Amino acid sequence: MVDFEKLKKICKLIRYDILTSTTEAKSGHPTTSLSAVELMTTLYFGGFLHLDLKDPKNPINDRVVFSKGHASPLIYSLYHAAGVISYPELMQLRKINSDLEGHPTFRFKYADVATGSLGQGLSAGVGMALGIRLRSTIDNRKLKMVVENRVSKIENQSSIINPQPLSSIIHRLSSIPKVFVLLGDSEMAEGQVWEAIQIASHYKLNNLIAIADVNRLGQSTETMLGWDLETYKKRFEAFGWNVITVDDGHDLKKVYKALSATQIFQKTNKTEKFVFASKPTIILVHTIKGKGVSFLENKEGWHGKPVSKDLLESALKELGDVNLNVRGVINVPNLKLKIKNLKLNKNLKLKIKNYKLGDFVATRLAYGDALLALGDVNKKIVALDAEMSNSTYSEKFAKKFPERYFEMFIAEQNMMTTALGISKLGFIPFASTFAAFLTRGFDQLRMAQYSAPNLKIVGSHCGVSIGPDGPSQMGLEDISMFRSILNSTILYPSDAVSAFKLTQIMADTDGLFYLRTNRKETPVIYDEKEEFHIGGSKIHKSEIRNPKSETNSKSKILKNNKTLMIAAGVTLHEALKAQKELAKSGIEVVVLDVYSVKPIDQVTINQLTHNCHNIIVVEDHYPSGGIGEAVMNLLITNHRSIVTNFIHLCVRKLPRSGSPEELLHYEEIDAEAIIETVKKF
Amino acid sequence: MVDFEKLKKICKLIRYDILTSTTEAKSGHPTTSLSAVELMTTLYFGGFLHLDLKDPKNPINDRVVFSKGHASPLIYSLYHAAGVISYPELMQLRKINSDLEGHPTFRFKYADVATGSLGQGLSAGVGMALGIRLRSTIDNRKLKMVVENRVSKIENQSSIINPQPLSSIIHRLSSIPKVFVLLGDSEMAEGQVWEAIQIASHYKLNNLIAIADVNRLGQSTETMLGWDLETYKKRFEAFGWNVITVDDGHDLKKVYKALSATQIFQKTNKTEKFVFASKPTIILVHTIKGKGVSFLENKEGWHGKPVSKDLLESALKELGDVNLNVRGVINVPNLKLKIKNLKLNKNLKLKIKNYKLGDFVATRLAYGDALLALGDVNKKIVALDAEMSNSTYSEKFAKKFPERYFEMFIAEQNMMTTALGISKLGFIPFASTFAAFLTRGFDQLRMAQYSAPNLKIVGSHCGVSIGPDGPSQMGLEDISMFRSILNSTILYPSDAVSAFKLTQIMADTDGLFYLRTNRKETPVIYDEKEEFHIGGSKIHKSEIRNPKSETNSKSKILKNNKTLMIAAGVTLHEALKAQKELAKSGIEVVVLDVYSVKPIDQVTINQLTHNCHNIIVVEDHYPSGGIGEAVMNLLITNHRSIVTNFIHLCVRKLPRSGSPEELLHYEEIDAEAIIETVKKF
Repeated sequence: MVDFEKLKKICKLIRYDILTSTTEAKSGHPTTSLSAVELMTTLYFGGFLHLDLKDPKNPINDRVVFSKGHASPLIYSLYHAAGVISYPELMQLRKINSDLEGHPTFRFKYADVATGSLGQGLSAGVGMALGIRLRSTIDNRKLKMVVENRVSKIENQSSIINPQPLSSIIHRLSSIPKVFVLLGDSEMAEGQVWEAIQIASHYKLNNLIAIADVNRLGQSTETMLGWDLETYKKRFEAFGWNVITVDDGHDLKKVYKALSATQIFQKTNKTEKFVFASKPTIILVHTIKGKGVSFLENKEGWHGKPVSKDLLESALKELGDVNLNVRGVINVPNLKLKIKNLKLNKNLKLKIKNYKLGDFVATRLAYGDALLALGDVNKKIVALDAEMSNSTYSEKFAKKFPERYFEMFIAEQNMMTTALGISKLGFIPFASTFAAFLTRGFDQLRMAQYSAPNLKIVGSHCGVSIGPDGPSQMGLEDISMFRSILNSTILYPSDAVSAFKLTQIMADTDGLFYLRTNRKETPVIYDEKEEFHIGGSKIHKSEIRNPKSETNSKSKILKNNKTLMIAAGVTLHEALKAQKELAKSGIEVVVLDVYSVKPIDQVTINQLTHNCHNIIVVEDHYPSGGIGEAVMNLLITNHRSIVTNFIHLCVRKLPRSGSPEELLHYEEIDAEAIIETVKKF
Repeated sequence: MVDFEKLKKICKLIRYDILTSTTEAKSGHPTTSLSAVELMTTLYFGGFLHLDLKDPKNPINDRVVFSKGHASPLIYSLYHAAGVISYPELMQLRKINSDLEGHPTFRFKYADVATGSLGQGLSAGVGMALGIRLRSTIDNRKLKMVVENRVSKIENQSSIINPQPLSSIIHRLSSIPKVFVLLGDSEMAEGQVWEAIQIASHYKLNNLIAIADVNRLGQSTETMLGWDLETYKKRFEAFGWNVITVDDGHDLKKVYKALSATQIFQKTNKTEKFVFASKPTIILVHTIKGKGVSFLENKEGWHGKPVSKDLLESALKELGDVNLNVRGVINVPNLKLKIKNLKLNKNLKLKIKNYKLGDFVATRLAYGDALLALGDVNKKIVALDAEMSNSTYSEKFAKKFPERYFEMFIAEQNMMTTALGISKLGFIPFASTFAAFLTRGFDQLRMAQYSAPNLKIVGSHCGVSIGPDGPSQMGLEDISMFRSILNSTILYPSDAVSAFKLTQIMADTDGLFYLRTNRKETPVIYDEKEEFHIGGSKIHKSEIRNPKSETNSKSKILKNNKTLMIAAGVTLHEALKAQKELAKSGIEVVVLDVYSVKPIDQVTINQLTHNCHNIIVVEDHYPSGGIGEAVMNLLITNHRSIVTNFIHLCVRKLPRSGSPEELLHYEEIDAEAIIETVKKF
C-alpha cells in the first residue's frame, strides 16, 4: 500500500521548492504550480508512473507531458524530489546558463516536447500514445477486438466477470506504456485540445490519460467554466472519453483513488473488473490555485508572479515542517517489455520509380510514389494527413501501410503536434495537406523547433498555379512561414525525379523539413541518375535540353551569359520555356533550379553572379519571405553588389479563380513575363 | 403559409444550376452543393432570411455565412434563383473574369467574409452576431436578464405561460437580425469550430443559428462521426447549444419545421412559448451528398468533381421537369429597425497621454493608453483579447468599455475570425495577445485578406527581450508572418509616444494592421508633438539627443556618415546606445527608426544610402522575413548596389531563458554587438 505520509512530505518539499525557486528567479508561475502538487506527486511517487530516470527516452517508459508548461517550477521540483536535480541546480531556474527554463524545452532531458504555448500537450500525448501502440509487439487490433467484445458484453450485463479467460490479454494490455498529460483548465478553450480529444477517442487510445487541473483562474480572469466539473464532464463524455472527477485535488487519497481507476483492470472485491478498455481517460480535478499559501489561494492577480523575498518567509511558514531530505521513488518500467525494432534492414533496397523524361507528372504524385517506396524499406516512416490524402497522394502509403497511416481529419493543428509526438517514439512522420492549410499549424511548427524535431511536412497545391479553386486554397505564404522557423530545411522540386529523390533525402536526414509540391503536372526534366542534395541546385544552360550539373563548366557558361534566372517548382518550367524562346533570338540566359530553398545554394549562386549583372527570381509565392528574399539575402550579405539589375517576379496581385495558365499570366510569373523582363535589360 | 410546391421548383432549378455551372467550369464541388439544396432554399425562400438584396451590407439584414465555402455553386445558384445573378453570369463560374470564384471572396458582393479554408465560418458568424447585438438599440443586457429570469422560471415549471407581460420584449428581441451559418460536417473536426461553439454559448448568442449539413462524406473518407447525429447532438448540448435534429434534410417540410423552431418564440396551441431565449441554436441535418443524381448520391470518389459533359444529360434527366424561370422571394428586413449610429462625434477630441521624455514606459502600456483614449472618441472601436488583457494592456479599454470588450479566452483562431466578423458590422476591432501566439491565427489572417478586412492585430511580448519566460513566449516570426500577407501594414514603435500615435493611425486607417509591442520598458524618446505616418521613419543623428525629422538636412548628415543603422523597437534603443558610445570615439553614425516596417520608408532609406556604404540592420526577430529582409528587398530592387557592407544583426541562435539584457547580448543584437560591427567596418 502506498505511504500517504511520505507523499505528504514530498508535497511539502515540492511546495517549498516551487516557492523558493520562483522567488529566487524573481519570475515564474508558483500559483499555477501549487495547484497540481498533489496530482503530480501521486502520479510520480504513488506507483503510477513507470520511468527509467537513467534512460528517459526509452520507449518502454511511460511519458508525461506538462501541457501547462508554465507549471515548470513544479516539473523541476518533481525531478528534484526524485533525486536527479540538486537544490542548487533548482535555484538556477530561468537563469541564462540553466536548462531549467521558464517553460520546458528540449534542453530539459526529461521533457519529450517543449510546452508553453497552451493547448498543444494533449496532441503530443496523442502522438506518443499512437507511437507506443505502434512499437508495441502486442497485436493491438486483435487484442482490442477481443477485449472490446468482452467488455461490451460486460457492459451490457453491467456485471463483474471471472477474469481467467482474459487475464493474459489484460496483463499484456496493461503492460503497454502509458502517456499522462497534465492539462490546465484555461487551455481547454483552445480548439486544438478538442481536436486532440476527438482524435484520441477515434483511435481508442486507452493508454492516454489526461489530468485536468481545474483551478478556475486564468491569467487575467476566471475561465469560462470556472469549477463547473459537471459541464467539463458532459463535454468529455460526449467526445467519447472515460471521465473521473475528483472534488478535492489536494486530498492525496482521492487523487490516488482516481489514478487507480485509470488502470485497465482493477481488483474489486477479490474479483476483477474491466474498465476503460477502449477509451482515453480524463481525470477532472477541482484544485485551488496557489494552494498551501493562504494569501495566494484562489486569488486573482497572482498569475505568473512569484512571492517577493519579503513575503517568502511567511509563505514558507504556512507549509509547516519541511523535510528537505525526503526523496520519492519512481517505479521502473517493465524491462522485459518487448518493443518493435525499427532498425533499417540493409538488405532492402529502395525501389526508385522510373519516370520518363518529358512525361507530365505532378510533383505531389511523385511524393506519393516516394513515400510508398520508402515505406517498404524503412519501418520508421509513418504518414499523417488532414483528410486530403487523395490530393496530396499520401493515400498511396495509406493503402499499403494502413497501420502506419493516421488519418487526422480536418484538424491541422493537432496533426502537427501529433506528428511531433509520434517522432518521439523513434518514428519519422510525414504530415501532409494543402500548403495553404499548413498555416493553421504555424504555432505548432514554431513550438516544434524547441523540441529537437524530426518532422517532415509536405504541402501540396502551392501557388496560383492550382487555378480555379481560388485564393483560399493557394499556398502563397508557405515558404515564408517555413523560412521563418530558425532551423528548417525547405525543398521545392520541379519535377517527379527531384520530388522522389528529395523525399528520400527528407526521410534520411534528421530535422524539420518542408517539401512544397505542385497540383499541376510538370514535365520530367531530370534523368533518373541525377543527384540532389540539401543546399544543392541545378544549372540549366541555354539550348541544352538535358541539363547537367557540371560544376567545372560553370565559369565558362557565365562568360557568355549576363542574365541568370532563379526559379523552382512550376516557375522553373516557365523560366525554361523563356530560355528556349530567348535562345531563338540569340539571347542566352542561365536558369538555376533552386530546389533547395533553404539552405539555398550559396556557392553556386555566388559563382554564377560573379560576373552577372542581371538576375531574375521568379516564384509562385507572395513577395515577402520567399525565394526572392532568400536570394536577395544571400547576394547582399555576400556583397554581390555588382548585381545592378535584380527583378523579382512573384505574386503581387491578390489572386482569383482562373486557369493555371491565366493566373501565371495575370501575376506576371509566366514565360511571357520573364521574356519581357529579360528583353528590358 | 409557405408554398412548398414552389420551393420544390426552386430546388430543382438550383440543382440544375449547380450541375450545369460546374460541368461548364470543368471543376468545382457539385456533390457538396447538392446536399444542402433544400436547407438553403428553405432558409432563403421560405421566409426565414431577411435581406435587402439592393443593400446587402446594411446592418439591419440577416447574415448568411457559407462556412463550407466549397459549396459555392449552391451559393451562386441561390442568388440566381433570387434574380440577382443571370444564368450567363452563373455559367462564368470559376472563370478568370468572373467574381463567382471557386470559393467565395470579397469580390462576391453578397458574401461578408471569404470562406474556403474550412472551420472559420462559425467564428465569423459569432463576430457578426456580437456586432449586431452591439449595434442594436435594444438594451440587450436588461432584456436578456428579464427574459432569462422568465425563461428559467418557465423551464423550472416546464410549462407554457401566458405571453402578455413579455410580448413587447419578445417582439423586440425577435426583430434583432440573425446570423445563419452553414457548416459542413467534415469541418467540424477543426478545433476552431469548437472555439466558436464555446464562445457562442458563453455570450448567449441567441441570434446565431448554425445549420450542419451532415452528409457523412469528406474529401477522401467518411467523417469521424458519419451520420451519427446523436453524438453531434450530445456534443453541442454539452457546449450549451439548443439542438434541433432533422432526419431527412431533403424533406422540405421537415426543414421548414426545424427552421421555424429557431424563432425566439413560437405559437403553439394558441398559446405562446419561449424557446431558445439565451442560447445559440444548431440544426443538425442528415443529408445525402450528391442528392438528386443517383450516380452521385452518397458515393465516395466524387468530392470536388463535376459531372462530365457526357454524363450531364443523364444527371439532368433525373431532376425531371425544371422550370428555368421560377424565382424565389427573399423577405425584406424590418426597415424600421433602429440601429446605433457609429458616426464620429467631431466635437470629441482625443485625449493624448502626456509621456515625459526619458521616462521608461513599455510600448504595450502606451497601446493600452491609446486604445482607452480612442474608445472615448470613437464608438466603432471594439477590443478582443485571448485572455492576456493584463499583459497586452487591452484591459484598460476593457475596464472602461466592458460592452465593447470581448474576452475571447485562450482561443486565438476564433479571436481572429470573430474580430473580422465584428468589423463587418461597421466596427473597428483591435485584437491582441502575445505576438508569439498570433501564429496560431495565421490561416485566419491569410483568409482575412480575401475579405477586404478592417482588422487591427496587436502582438505584445515580441522578441528575446521578454527574457526569462523563454522561447515559447517569444514572438520571433511575427514580422515575417504579417509581411507575407499581401496587403498588410506593420507598425513597430520603440517608445510610448510613437506607440500611442501609431495606434491612433491604425484606428483611423482602413485595412489589415499589425502593431508589435514590447514587454520591456523603454525610454520615451519622442516629443509629444512629433508626427508619425504609415511609411514613415525617424532619423537620429549622432550626438543629438532630441531627434528631428528634418528632411532638408538629410543630405547634410550623410556627408559625414558612412554608417547607417536601421532598427525599431527595443533594438532601436540599443542602436542609440551604440551611437552615443561611438560618438565618444569620434565615430558618427546615423540611426533610422523604421517604426513603419511595412511599408518601409523607401524614400528616406534611398536618400540615406545614397552615399553610404555601411548598413547595419538590427532587430529582435529571426533572420528570415523581418526588417532585415525588408531593407534588403528595398535596397536591391532599388539598385542601391553601392552598399558594400550590409550586416544583419538578428536572432540567429535558438533562444533560451535569461534576463532581457543577457539575451540581447547572447543573440548579438545589443549595443555592444553593434559597436563591434561598426568598428569592423
